[in-house]
Amino acid sequence: MNTPAAPLATLVNHQVRLAARPQGLPGPECWQHTEEPVPEPGEGGVVVKVLALSLDPAMRGWMNEGKSYIPPVGIGEVMRAGGVGVVVASKNPAFAVGDHVSGGPGVQEYWSIAADHLKRSGLVKIDLRAGTLTQWLNVLGMPGMTGYFGLMDVGQPKAGETVVVSGAAGAVGQTVGQIAKIKGCRVVGIAGGPAKCEWVVKELGFDACIDYKAPAPEGSTKWDAVREGLKQHCPAGVDVYFDNVGGEILDTVLARINRKARIIICGAISQYNNTTAVQGPKNYLSLLVNRARMEGIVVFDYADRYHLAVAEMAGYLKDGRMKSKEDVVTGGVAAFPGTLPKLFTGENFGKLVLQVAEA
Amino acid sequence: MNTPAAPLATLVNHQVRLAARPQGLPGPECWQHTEEPVPEPGEGGVVVKVLALSLDPAMRGWMNEGKSYIPPVGIGEVMRAGGVGVVVASKNPAFAVGDHVSGGPGVQEYWSIAADHLKRSGLVKIDLRAGTLTQWLNVLGMPGMTGYFGLMDVGQPKAGETVVVSGAAGAVGQTVGQIAKIKGCRVVGIAGGPAKCEWVVKELGFDACIDYKAPAPEGSTKWDAVREGLKQHCPAGVDVYFDNVGGEILDTVLARINRKARIIICGAISQYNNTTAVQGPKNYLSLLVNRARMEGIVVFDYADRYHLAVAEMAGYLKDGRMKSKEDVVTGGVAAFPGTLPKLFTGENFGKLVLQVAEA
Repeated sequence: MNTPAAPLATLVNHQVRLAARPQGLPGPECWQHTEEPVPEPGEGGVVVKVLALSLDPAMRGWMNEGKSYIPPVGIGEVMRAGGVGVVVASKNPAFAVGDHVSGGPGVQEYWSIAADHLKRSGLVKIDLRAGTLTQWLNVLGMPGMTGYFGLMDVGQPKAGETVVVSGAAGAVGQTVGQIAKIKGCRVVGIAGGPAKCEWVVKELGFDACIDYKAPAPEGSTKWDAVREGLKQHCPAGVDVYFDNVGGEILDTVLARINRKARIIICGAISQYNNTTAVQGPKNYLSLLVNRARMEGIVVFDYADRYHLAVAEMAGYLKDGRMKSKEDVVTGGVAAFPGTLPKLFTGENFGKLVLQVAEA
Repeated sequence: MNTPAAPLATLVNHQVRLAARPQGLPGPECWQHTEEPVPEPGEGGVVVKVLALSLDPAMRGWMNEGKSYIPPVGIGEVMRAGGVGVVVASKNPAFAVGDHVSGGPGVQEYWSIAADHLKRSGLVKIDLRAGTLTQWLNVLGMPGMTGYFGLMDVGQPKAGETVVVSGAAGAVGQTVGQIAKIKGCRVVGIAGGPAKCEWVVKELGFDACIDYKAPAPEGSTKWDAVREGLKQHCPAGVDVYFDNVGGEILDTVLARINRKARIIICGAISQYNNTTAVQGPKNYLSLLVNRARMEGIVVFDYADRYHLAVAEMAGYLKDGRMKSKEDVVTGGVAAFPGTLPKLFTGENFGKLVLQVAEA
């Protein structure tokens, strides 16, 4: 049995709870700030000090009422979030004080897990020799796993094929593009703004990146520019498209796919804050013409194979074939409400991480 | 070498050619009626007297300009059509006068195939012991092959799963539903009108059929009724959806799919005569939530396996497990322009066939 460095009784757990379901972009009215004492762990329980939280586009979906791949966050509940931390108290032989861990602590400073919730909590030890704390929220964490299994299992890219990925500078996108390059594909990203596009090409080694925010020439739209970009940079068409954004970009890529193309539906960030209906892909009949496939991916399905992908990607991080960029925001959990909307406006550059405490 | 019963020189070949590309439903202005002599076959060539033509929803797509899975019919060309006939002259040892054949004769009374076009023409002998002439345009022909390979290869139904098929009384739909029943699935059709629905259930043995044209109760739409029908008749959700129609019905089914569901995109008859953009499936993110797959099918890809499916289905026709309904219109090729639109208004009941000559 381990004992914490500081007595838990002296600590306060600051939390951010869902106060109201959002219409469109989630504003401050959606959140409630609370504080609680940090209880001693019960038999078999663990207390984790949260060091950093992952801010993900999927959070927007979790805030909505209604059936999805996981239940929505309830009103009054601590907002769901993935994160990394350090064990500060443990009555469980599998976790020692000082162990670094990842899991789903939610937006709070301390995460108390009772013995009978441990399995469901997803709490696992992480090895900082494989990657840094923030890399464990990025390429070695959920976004990395999403990119890896979505690309490899659903996309099944073959060397020489052309892979297009939207949200290319985001957490999932950077993993997808780099893995596809390592597997011998031509990789074209789509991202917003010249800085992201340049980074994706120069730092991550993508073959090209299309800036969907670039000002369109007189008499054309920015989607025309994306179409032209795809024509130019994917001269042999698109074999795999990893879609993080939906909307017009999905439709534009659908018009350029090859026979037997695979489209991975990972997200639709352009649609998450709609107050009207989702925009369906009007070019979906391109699936018919091209005998192509569009398939959804939810990362949790691959939990029993995470360790394999982590091992592979840790190797790439070590040998320099893979890079990882995180956009770390400070300010602790109090900064969560103001930081989350950046994901939807594209203000973040790299995986958006909220630092909760000093490591 | 064989010689025809009647000298070819005495015959006239009446033809229907594409005169203009349609806007919306193809009207009489789209067609030109022509006649030509019937030439003697050259060395290795064959002349076929067309007995019946297949009228297919896909024809509408072939009339449009632009890239698709096959080139559009050119203005002034004989309209493309599948059909069956009998060889009336042959200078090719593989075909004898009197042989029954199927292929793509186009909308005309005689089909002359030169030696160097034989392979591309798709001309094959058919065995009337396996099925009647019109069955060779239905369950043993392109629609049957489309239904068979779309369901089995893309849909991969397992016994006990629920299969939904739209256009259930149509040529493809009747094949899909009956094969799915034979494979041990629960089968729910969607069709327009009580007569089709009753036939699909009572004659073909579907478990249920939803009438999408049924008058909606006060204060609701007919799509609400389809939604309710799916809820009622697919209590365990939808595992495989074979989509022939697109539009609102596709969206309604997407809202009821199960994990790992397969959606076969075979056609979108509700959208073919749109003068505005195709309606994209706004519920496509159900693919993500349910880790489901939407995939297009083009029957020509399975040409090297047609004989296997024909053999299997001929067995089912013989042992009575499979039925085949054709809606045979008389009047010869002159009746083609007036008959084709029935497909899009749903006036046909069963596979729409145009009789060109007495067998």
